[in-house]
Amino acid sequence: MKKFLRLLFTAFSFLLPAALMAQQQEKLDTAMISRIKKEGFDNSQVMNILSMLTDVHGPRLTNSPGYRKAADYAKATLESWGVQNVHFDTWNEEFGTGWELKKFSLQTLSPVYFPVIAYPKAWTPGIKGPVQAEAVYLDIKKEEDLAKYKGKLKGKIVLFSLPTPVKPGFVPDATRLVDSVLLQMANSGPTEAFTGRRFQGAQEPQRLAYLKWDLLQKEGAIAVLEASPASRLEDGTLTVAAATVPYPAEVPNEKRARAYSANVPKILPQVVVAAEHYNRMVRQLQNGQAVKLELTLETAFTPAAPGFNVIGEIPGTDLKDEVVMIGAHLDSWHSGTGTTDNAAGSCVMLEAMRILKSLGASPRRTIRIALWGGEEQGLLGSRNYVKRTFGSRLDKSYPYDSLRLTPAAEKFSVYFNMDNGTGKYRGVYMQGNEAARTPLRLWLKPFEKLGASTLTLRNTSGTDHLSFDALGLPAFQFIQDPIEYGTRTHHTSMDLFDKAVEPDLKHNAVMTAAFAWQAANREEKFPRK
Amino acid sequence: MKKFLRLLFTAFSFLLPAALMAQQQEKLDTAMISRIKKEGFDNSQVMNILSMLTDVHGPRLTNSPGYRKAADYAKATLESWGVQNVHFDTWNEEFGTGWELKKFSLQTLSPVYFPVIAYPKAWTPGIKGPVQAEAVYLDIKKEEDLAKYKGKLKGKIVLFSLPTPVKPGFVPDATRLVDSVLLQMANSGPTEAFTGRRFQGAQEPQRLAYLKWDLLQKEGAIAVLEASPASRLEDGTLTVAAATVPYPAEVPNEKRARAYSANVPKILPQVVVAAEHYNRMVRQLQNGQAVKLELTLETAFTPAAPGFNVIGEIPGTDLKDEVVMIGAHLDSWHSGTGTTDNAAGSCVMLEAMRILKSLGASPRRTIRIALWGGEEQGLLGSRNYVKRTFGSRLDKSYPYDSLRLTPAAEKFSVYFNMDNGTGKYRGVYMQGNEAARTPLRLWLKPFEKLGASTLTLRNTSGTDHLSFDALGLPAFQFIQDPIEYGTRTHHTSMDLFDKAVEPDLKHNAVMTAAFAWQAANREEKFPRK
Repeated sequence: MKKFLRLLFTAFSFLLPAALMAQQQEKLDTAMISRIKKEGFDNSQVMNILSMLTDVHGPRLTNSPGYRKAADYAKATLESWGVQNVHFDTWNEEFGTGWELKKFSLQTLSPVYFPVIAYPKAWTPGIKGPVQAEAVYLDIKKEEDLAKYKGKLKGKIVLFSLPTPVKPGFVPDATRLVDSVLLQMANSGPTEAFTGRRFQGAQEPQRLAYLKWDLLQKEGAIAVLEASPASRLEDGTLTVAAATVPYPAEVPNEKRARAYSANVPKILPQVVVAAEHYNRMVRQLQNGQAVKLELTLETAFTPAAPGFNVIGEIPGTDLKDEVVMIGAHLDSWHSGTGTTDNAAGSCVMLEAMRILKSLGASPRRTIRIALWGGEEQGLLGSRNYVKRTFGSRLDKSYPYDSLRLTPAAEKFSVYFNMDNGTGKYRGVYMQGNEAARTPLRLWLKPFEKLGASTLTLRNTSGTDHLSFDALGLPAFQFIQDPIEYGTRTHHTSMDLFDKAVEPDLKHNAVMTAAFAWQAANREEKFPRK
Repeated sequence: MKKFLRLLFTAFSFLLPAALMAQQQEKLDTAMISRIKKEGFDNSQVMNILSMLTDVHGPRLTNSPGYRKAADYAKATLESWGVQNVHFDTWNEEFGTGWELKKFSLQTLSPVYFPVIAYPKAWTPGIKGPVQAEAVYLDIKKEEDLAKYKGKLKGKIVLFSLPTPVKPGFVPDATRLVDSVLLQMANSGPTEAFTGRRFQGAQEPQRLAYLKWDLLQKEGAIAVLEASPASRLEDGTLTVAAATVPYPAEVPNEKRARAYSANVPKILPQVVVAAEHYNRMVRQLQNGQAVKLELTLETAFTPAAPGFNVIGEIPGTDLKDEVVMIGAHLDSWHSGTGTTDNAAGSCVMLEAMRILKSLGASPRRTIRIALWGGEEQGLLGSRNYVKRTFGSRLDKSYPYDSLRLTPAAEKFSVYFNMDNGTGKYRGVYMQGNEAARTPLRLWLKPFEKLGASTLTLRNTSGTDHLSFDALGLPAFQFIQDPIEYGTRTHHTSMDLFDKAVEPDLKHNAVMTAAFAWQAANREEKFPRK
C-alpha cells in the first residue's frame, strides 16, 4: 500500500469493523518467507547446533560447568553469524550453586553381581568411596512402621521408595497430533490447558515422607536409593530431577531451601534407580537374600552465584526501539543431555537467528533471542529478566490491574517460546488472546500445507512464556507434536540427541524465523489481551 | 467308555473313517482340568519360581555359576514337590567354559563426564584395570579405509561398529495377537513359520568385518565397543550375546571356535554400548573432541565341562514306560536376567509339574520335565539329550528315511515346549503334523474362552522342540502373544522380571499341565507325522 493510500485508509478506518481492519492491516511477506524456507530447509545447521548443545556441552544444569560451556558456545556462535549485542544477562539475584557429576557407579555385589542402571539426583552430595554397604528396603506404609527400623539403618544404603509397577508398553511412545485432537483444540475456549502426558511423581503423603527422611538421618544411613517414578514406559529409563531436601509438612514452600541453595542443610546422597533394577533388589531382599551394594559417587559444586541468560539481537531499523523476542530455556536436567528439554528449543531459536542473519535480514523492529537459565527450577531466568526489563505485577490475581510496567514494556511486541520437546509446530496456543488470531492466522498460511494450521485459545503452561504473559505481554508457545516427550524423554536419562527429529526441528526453525520476521515488520506492535 | 464297549469299539474300528475314529477315541478329562485350573489360578507359585530363577539366580548363561545355581534350585524345588528321579542330565560332550561378569563400568571422562549404558559380551576376557584410554571411531566402510588406521590404534578403545540409527517409537512395544493374524495362521499351510519380530544383526560383509578385527589385534587396540544392534526400539536397551571370535570368511562355520570353547583363540575385550550413547561418542569424535574413556571389566571363567540339563518325572502307572515330556530351556543370555527368554518357559514347566503333583496326579504315562542348557548356543542341551535318548538322523534331508531310533523313541509320545516370551498361549503350532489336529483341538476346548483356540499347520523354529521334530517325534511350541518379546526383551538388558505378565504365565502353566495330563492318559501315544 502506498503511503497516500495508507493515510487515507487510516483516516477512514474508524468506519470499518475492527476485525476487518486488522485483517487488511496484516501483510504476508511471501518473498522473504520463501527465502527463509529455502535457507532453513536446504542449508540447515540445526542438528549441528543441537549436537554441540547436547553431545559436547550437555547436560546443562543451571549454573553448572556444562551450562556455562553451552552458553559460551551459544554466545560465540551468535557472534560468528553477526548477531549483535550478544551478552550474558546476569540476574540481579542469587541462583545458588552449580553442580556436576564427577564419577558414578552402582553395583550389586550379592546375591548376584549386576551393574545397576541408576543416576544420582542433581545437587546430591557425593560419598567418600567407593563404599560397600548392605541394602535395606524401607517398607514403610504408615507411621507405625517406622519403629521397626530403629537401630537398623546405620551404615546402610536405604531403598527408600515403594517399588514402581512396570507394565508392558501396549501404547506407542511416540505420537503425532491427530486431526481430532487438533480440532478439539481449535474449538476450545481460553482456559483449558493441553497438558500432554507427564510422569506421575510419587504420591506419598508429605508427612510420612518427612518422617522417613528424618529417620534415615537420625539412624545414620549413608545413601538413599529411590525407584524411578512411574512413567508410562520404563525399560530402564530414569526420571531424575533435584535431590530432595526434606522438610516437615508445616514448613511453607517458600521457606524451604532448595538443593542448589547456598545454605542447603546437609542431605543424604540420593540416587534414582531404574524401576526394573530397584524392584529386583526389593524382591531379592523379600526372598531373604542379603543385598550388598558398591556405590561410587563423586560430585562437585561450584560457588553460589546469580544465574544468567544468553541474549543477542538483530537490531531493528525504523522501529528499532520496539522488540520482538524469540527464546527457549538453555538449562536442562542432568541424567540425559537435555535434548528435547530443551536443547531442541534452543537450537531452533539459534537456527532461526542464523537463517535471518544469513539472509541479511534487516527488520523494522529489533529481533532479540533469549536463552534462559533456571527454567527447570521455576522459570527463574525469564522471570528475572522480565522483572528487570518489563516490570512486575504487585497482585497476582487477574486482571492486570496492579501492573507496574517499564517504558520498555510499552515497546515490547511479542515473544515466541519453544519448550515442548522435539515435535513439529502444528499451530499456536493463543493464551486466551483473541486479538492474536488475525495476525497468527495469516502467518500460519505459508505453513498450512506443512501441517501447522491450528490456533487454539487455550493456555499452555509450564515454561518461560508465562513470565511475559503474567504482565499481559503477548507471549506464546507453539502447539507441538508430542513425539516421545511426555512418555520417554521429559526429564529422563533418555533425553539424548538421537531422540530429536531432524525434519521437525528444521520446520520449527523456519516457522520461528518467519514469525519473528512478520512480527518485526508489522505496522503495529502485536495486539495484547 | 466301559472296558467291554471299548473292546467292542476297537474290534470294529476298522469300519470307521480314521478321523472320526480318532475323534471318538479322544476324551477330555474335564474333572481333572477343572482341578488343574483351580490350583493353577488360585494357588499359583509361578511368579515366586520366576523370581528365584531371575532375580536371585539370573542370569543363567550356560555352564555359568548362575546356571548352576538355578539348576540346583530347580532340582531342589522339584524334589520338594515329590517329583521323582530328579537329576542333572549331563551331556556326553563338552560344552565349554562357564563365564560370569565380576565387575563392569564404562565411563566417558571427556569431553564431558557421563556413565555409559553398556554391557560386556558373554565370554569376553577382562582387562587389567580400570584402564583409561582414548576412543577411536573405526569409520571403515570399505577395504581401502583400513590403511588410515595403521599406527593409530595402539592402546586405544575402538568404536568398532557404525552408529545405530534410532527412531521414535510410533509403534507399541507390546502387542497381543489379533484375530486377523490368528486367522491367517489357522488357514496357513505347514511350511510358513511365524517368526515374529526379531532384531536385525549387523549386516556388514563378513570379509571386511574380519579385516577390521584383524587390524585391531595387529595394531594393539585394548578393547572394542559396538553399538547395540538396531532393534525397533532402543531407549538405552542393550542387545547382547556372545563375544565375536573373528575368522576369515573362508573358514567354514563348523571349524570356528566359539567364545565359550576351551580352545578359543585370544580375543579382545568386547562391550556393547547403548545406541544413543555409542552414537553420542561417535558424534563427539566427529565434532573434533577427544573422547577419553575409563573401562573396568573383570570377568571369570569356570573350567571347560560338559553341559547339563535338569530332568524330573512323575512316574506313570499302566503305561509308565511311555513318556510325555514338557520342557523349556533354563539357560539365558546375560545382560538381563533371562526372564522372558526363558525363565518364563522354565517357571511355567515347573509350575505345571507342581500343579500336577499337588493334585496327586497319577498319570498312565510318565510325565517328564526337561529344563535344557545350551539352547542359546544352538539347542545343544535338547539335541544332546535327544540323540542319547531317542536316536539320530544320518541324513538331514526330509523325509525321515535315515532315522536310527532307540527303543525309547518308540515309547515316546509327545513333547511340549515354551520359548516365545511371557505371552499367553493362544494355540499350537502343529509343525505340519495334520494328525495332531484332533487331539489338540479337543484339548484346547477348555481354554477356548480364555483365548487359546487356534491351530496352525505352520512350523515354528528356533528352539528345543526342533531336536525332537528332527527325528519325527511329535514336539510342539505353543502360539504365544508377542507382548514385548521381539521388540524389547529378547536377548536384551531389559529381559527382567518386571517384563513378565503374571496372568499369562498362570494361564500357560495351567494349559501345559492340562495338555500333559491329557497326553499321558490318552489311549494311544500321540500321533506322528
